[in-house]
Amino acid sequence: MNNSFGELFRITLFGESHGSCAGVVVDGCPAGLLLSERDIQSEVDKRKPVPQAGQTPRREEDQVQILAGVFKGRTTGAPICLLVWNKDTDSSAYEKIKNTPRPGHADYTAFVKYGGLNDYRGGGRFSGRVTVGLVMAGAVAKNVLNLKAIEVLAHTVQLGSIKAGESTYWQIRSRTYKNSLRCADAKVVKLMLEELIKAEREGNSLGGVVEGIALNLPVGLGEPFFDTLEGQLAKALFAIPAVKGVEFGAGFRAAEMKGSENNDPLKIEDGRIVMGSNNAGGVLGGISDGMPLILRAAVKPTPSIAQNQQSVNLETMKETRMTIKGRHDVCLAPRAVVIVESMMAVTLCDLALRAGLIERIVK
Amino acid sequence: MNNSFGELFRITLFGESHGSCAGVVVDGCPAGLLLSERDIQSEVDKRKPVPQAGQTPRREEDQVQILAGVFKGRTTGAPICLLVWNKDTDSSAYEKIKNTPRPGHADYTAFVKYGGLNDYRGGGRFSGRVTVGLVMAGAVAKNVLNLKAIEVLAHTVQLGSIKAGESTYWQIRSRTYKNSLRCADAKVVKLMLEELIKAEREGNSLGGVVEGIALNLPVGLGEPFFDTLEGQLAKALFAIPAVKGVEFGAGFRAAEMKGSENNDPLKIEDGRIVMGSNNAGGVLGGISDGMPLILRAAVKPTPSIAQNQQSVNLETMKETRMTIKGRHDVCLAPRAVVIVESMMAVTLCDLALRAGLIERIVK
Amino acid sequence: MNNSFGELFRITLFGESHGSCAGVVVDGCPAGLLLSERDIQSEVDKRKPVPQAGQTPRREEDQVQILAGVFKGRTTGAPICLLVWNKDTDSSAYEKIKNTPRPGHADYTAFVKYGGLNDYRGGGRFSGRVTVGLVMAGAVAKNVLNLKAIEVLAHTVQLGSIKAGESTYWQIRSRTYKNSLRCADAKVVKLMLEELIKAEREGNSLGGVVEGIALNLPVGLGEPFFDTLEGQLAKALFAIPAVKGVEFGAGFRAAEMKGSENNDPLKIEDGRIVMGSNNAGGVLGGISDGMPLILRAAVKPTPSIAQNQQSVNLETMKETRMTIKGRHDVCLAPRAVVIVESMMAVTLCDLALRAGLIERIVK
Amino acid sequence: MNNSFGELFRITLFGESHGSCAGVVVDGCPAGLLLSERDIQSEVDKRKPVPQAGQTPRREEDQVQILAGVFKGRTTGAPICLLVWNKDTDSSAYEKIKNTPRPGHADYTAFVKYGGLNDYRGGGRFSGRVTVGLVMAGAVAKNVLNLKAIEVLAHTVQLGSIKAGESTYWQIRSRTYKNSLRCADAKVVKLMLEELIKAEREGNSLGGVVEGIALNLPVGLGEPFFDTLEGQLAKALFAIPAVKGVEFGAGFRAAEMKGSENNDPLKIEDGRIVMGSNNAGGVLGGISDGMPLILRAAVKPTPSIAQNQQSVNLETMKETRMTIKGRHDVCLAPRAVVIVESMMAVTLCDLALRAGLIERIVK
Repeated sequence: MNNSFGELFRITLFGESHGSCAGVVVDGCPAGLLLSERDIQSEVDKRKPVPQAGQTPRREEDQVQILAGVFKGRTTGAPICLLVWNKDTDSSAYEKIKNTPRPGHADYTAFVKYGGLNDYRGGGRFSGRVTVGLVMAGAVAKNVLNLKAIEVLAHTVQLGSIKAGESTYWQIRSRTYKNSLRCADAKVVKLMLEELIKAEREGNSLGGVVEGIALNLPVGLGEPFFDTLEGQLAKALFAIPAVKGVEFGAGFRAAEMKGSENNDPLKIEDGRIVMGSNNAGGVLGGISDGMPLILRAAVKPTPSIAQNQQSVNLETMKETRMTIKGRHDVCLAPRAVVIVESMMAVTLCDLALRAGLIERIVK
Repeated sequence: MNNSFGELFRITLFGESHGSCAGVVVDGCPAGLLLSERDIQSEVDKRKPVPQAGQTPRREEDQVQILAGVFKGRTTGAPICLLVWNKDTDSSAYEKIKNTPRPGHADYTAFVKYGGLNDYRGGGRFSGRVTVGLVMAGAVAKNVLNLKAIEVLAHTVQLGSIKAGESTYWQIRSRTYKNSLRCADAKVVKLMLEELIKAEREGNSLGGVVEGIALNLPVGLGEPFFDTLEGQLAKALFAIPAVKGVEFGAGFRAAEMKGSENNDPLKIEDGRIVMGSNNAGGVLGGISDGMPLILRAAVKPTPSIAQNQQSVNLETMKETRMTIKGRHDVCLAPRAVVIVESMMAVTLCDLALRAGLIERIVK
Repeated sequence: MNNSFGELFRITLFGESHGSCAGVVVDGCPAGLLLSERDIQSEVDKRKPVPQAGQTPRREEDQVQILAGVFKGRTTGAPICLLVWNKDTDSSAYEKIKNTPRPGHADYTAFVKYGGLNDYRGGGRFSGRVTVGLVMAGAVAKNVLNLKAIEVLAHTVQLGSIKAGESTYWQIRSRTYKNSLRCADAKVVKLMLEELIKAEREGNSLGGVVEGIALNLPVGLGEPFFDTLEGQLAKALFAIPAVKGVEFGAGFRAAEMKGSENNDPLKIEDGRIVMGSNNAGGVLGGISDGMPLILRAAVKPTPSIAQNQQSVNLETMKETRMTIKGRHDVCLAPRAVVIVESMMAVTLCDLALRAGLIERIVK
Repeated sequence: MNNSFGELFRITLFGESHGSCAGVVVDGCPAGLLLSERDIQSEVDKRKPVPQAGQTPRREEDQVQILAGVFKGRTTGAPICLLVWNKDTDSSAYEKIKNTPRPGHADYTAFVKYGGLNDYRGGGRFSGRVTVGLVMAGAVAKNVLNLKAIEVLAHTVQLGSIKAGESTYWQIRSRTYKNSLRCADAKVVKLMLEELIKAEREGNSLGGVVEGIALNLPVGLGEPFFDTLEGQLAKALFAIPAVKGVEFGAGFRAAEMKGSENNDPLKIEDGRIVMGSNNAGGVLGGISDGMPLILRAAVKPTPSIAQNQQSVNLETMKETRMTIKGRHDVCLAPRAVVIVESMMAVTLCDLALRAGLIERIVK
């Protein structure tokens, strides 16, 4: 297990889906940052399911508590411990299937890796529930980045077969959290919802793609050779359950482009160097180039579906069939939006500290 | 800068394109492993350009030297230092353009991050040349994995617009290094070559996609939450210059799949649990599931093209145009094949040690 | 701030003296280890002040709570979060002296490092209170080491001017926690107590020396060059407030010995290699040699004394005099005994995992 | 093995006593630092044995080579690889005793840890020879610290039974490297030499104590809780073979002091806060307090002595007697002086970078 991420801004995650709580320790945050439970709560609330088609009926209060590291409304330089208590847990459905790994879930791999000793209730440590800790850490990181006017955005750009059109940063900023699909393109939200409802009726689930953006990054973030901006962000995003691909800028499309198309020409605008296009997605040589950072994460369809599926019984080592009860999102992409933002913020915060761009004391 | 990768099996890279050498220190290798310069040489030779259309005319002997860590033909448990000397360097072309960042290269970002003090000759620290150290480290890692019969393969699956068809592992193993494009699908090699020659004539370059495969992995590699198999491998692959996207199994295609299609059903075969399909690419919950590990890396077109391009002069801060002379591959994907294998091997070796699967002494 | 320690067995500390709690996240513990709140409580109780002369009147219930990582009485492989709530806090004394750094305390250095934003109440993050997290983590580590029959002991060997005589391991094991001074030599306890009472009456404090011992270590723990057994343990012990020196085996006495005296001859006993003496303290070349590991930590006198002392006012930048009220131990050495044990256990656990000596699943 | 040290300023050591070379990779050095082979050579030369009584007759040219990371006389931000080739190696003496571990050496522990596969010639990886890499890294670190006017000094304060008197910083700076014993107190050098010659005649060896000092440190270096200034420095110093104890300020003497004696009062001098004494050795709460940093390292007597010693034969598992031939220093303390300086410089450089006190680009 390695439940810590980052070098100078380091987060350590703990908690399980059906245990007593989910939390995170945030270490390395500059002293003097204004930080209230309300700040963090508003981020955690973005992760909550919206009471609507295609979202888990599980209802968590998710009342954020700051256990350590904040004094008189400001961070102190000491580690910040953030926690939400689990309340609405119903483990009954899991007891029946504990020996039958759910296809597409970590049940089987966790069973082998931990010798069957892992907490299997609700996916235990592998549950999306644990990501609330990422969002709490992300809330802190966003506050730090805000000191340098760095902004992190994310939105759903594909849900099932429906792809969103281009949106401006202003649209992404203002519209994403206005709808339950976290989609900035108002025109496709209805189509996405229809596809979602259809999948739900079929007892099925959908995949999607989340785009993440960081604005106002200075040139110079990212540490070659191994802690590249892309490599660190990709590692961070693959920590989000269900993410199966990460690309930057033109990404996989670059494979079919020619050098003359893909190279971003350098220009002078208002006395500053900018790129004439952004196929690099804001990263050259693993280092931020001053353009908006653009990435996309592929989210696989929710593995928990209502249809009858083929599995095995780990005790009898015989094949069996199973139907998952429980409560689940039809598509994980919308709920992953704020988590993508959070992991981006955490990663950028660490790299900014390592590059010496952030002071240790906020005045 | 962070030029080290891995926790228990840790590699540290040094060297520049036009400096005296390129090398790597490999730390944490078990004692007693048979290791000769010839072993490593044969891997390094796979990285050399094949004298043929579309490959850089730069000719390096790349004679591998073991400077430390091997005694009587075996590793000792001490750090292994591996090195090749640079010989065929011609820096003249770079002096002229040192103030004119080449589009698509790290020239501009490195200039800003290092205050113009970085070695700009041949891309310096950001050159593909430095990856010879990755290949040397990969040779050691492959030898370690071989103790557990774990095999790592890679091959070009797309070059420009030409996509390879499916190949068996046997075909990949036996054909990839038989042609300069590192493509296992004999049928498309000719088409790829034609596209390559055409691009070269146009003074242009091509992108591509490399697929990496690891066979015979035990269930249980990968450390949740943050050091997932996917996350660690992605971070490792983004260290390879020109990689802009990484996906596992169905990857971005999973976004358009339904849960019922994407979930890999569990089955019993010969008394062992296997998956009926491999959309997960061998990874569930960040942990290997016993199926072949499958990943794909998108390689952007070589930024160095012979066409005239738009750039800026960093001294005068005026726009300018430039034409890159020098010597370059038309497509980087074929040469990235052995590097993808190497970074996969290094990553898997580290995760295997962390999971306690490899002994510290080879008998 | 770096509030994490260890590579594979990693602890992350949080909490403050007068905040809501003190806690620790223990990551990397093998799955399947029996672990109850009672196990940890019994270790935490050893750290509590004994109601007797020379000990702080602060009374904490210190009721241990396991927040995560344990399921059905066993560890799961997930991070373990352990916590005690702060209850008996009286911050009034600190408000008055917040601009007057207490001599010998971290008040001044913390003020500068964190720009005066640190929690100053009761020493905040620098309080001995925080070490309860170390003891909770140590309790887990001791349980892990117990799987390999490795035992960690510590005892007070000097308090003020009184030095304890030699004790057998059996005496250390059975007597140390029977008296409030944590001293295994019954003959000197009375003398130590007298010196303690005398110092208390004078409003003064005493230093001391704690000896730590690890029995039954296999040969081979410790990672040269930098993560030597001595180096890692020393780093761990200097995390304990008030420790100002650490030595192994003959330690500083070795400076006056000759090679012929200090070298431990190798012998055969019962078919096994042993040393004829133990001046090395069980460590050669940074690696355990199979003999008992012996170290000593110098503990400075408690900086909080009742006498009037010279200090400065940080606001006015003028010299001033101060008298510390509050509640304090006259000598920290006895209370450091269980903390020394804990940090030794945590360190040895990490090095044992890194050396591949501990399985990831306890059966 | 963990042959890397440091987080942001990280050194990675390689090489063996009788292999081809000894070297180090220094990663994280700011770009733009003036650095020549001559700079490093002058530090390496301080480590060379002085042709005089009590010093090994081994003569190494130790010609420093910069293999990477320097361009046009300045560091580039890329990893710096520094190397000296081994030339004067005579392995014959070691072949005869390869199955007979030398008492006080790492022979036995290395044999077990690496299954007898380690390079045993001249101590191999555990040889003092390897420390030349530490000195080369230290040379770089000293140059970095010099940017902030931070100075690191060390000198022999005890050799066998002879203790040096107090010296001023000016005396330490100007006299230490004027005599072969690296002792700043001219009055005792003759006595030390006499004791050294006597021990040599008896075929024996002596221990000693080295004091290290860092001047002009700002307040605020050191990262609580675990990467304290003391803990990091102690870990660094225990990497030096033969060091068995490390203490700061009053160190072990503090155990016998009272709080009223040990506490350093705070005063105002020239408008700045200073301590009226320096029993803390410049560190409070793990953080530098602005006073000179003072530490002492106990160096055990050279284990290689000419006298006949008791050992065992690892093949026959029988007791045997041995006499070490070869070439050895009678006391290691004088040669450790520059290594203590080097490890202090490396550690302080890393902590200064982590505290944000050093810019990434030197102008």
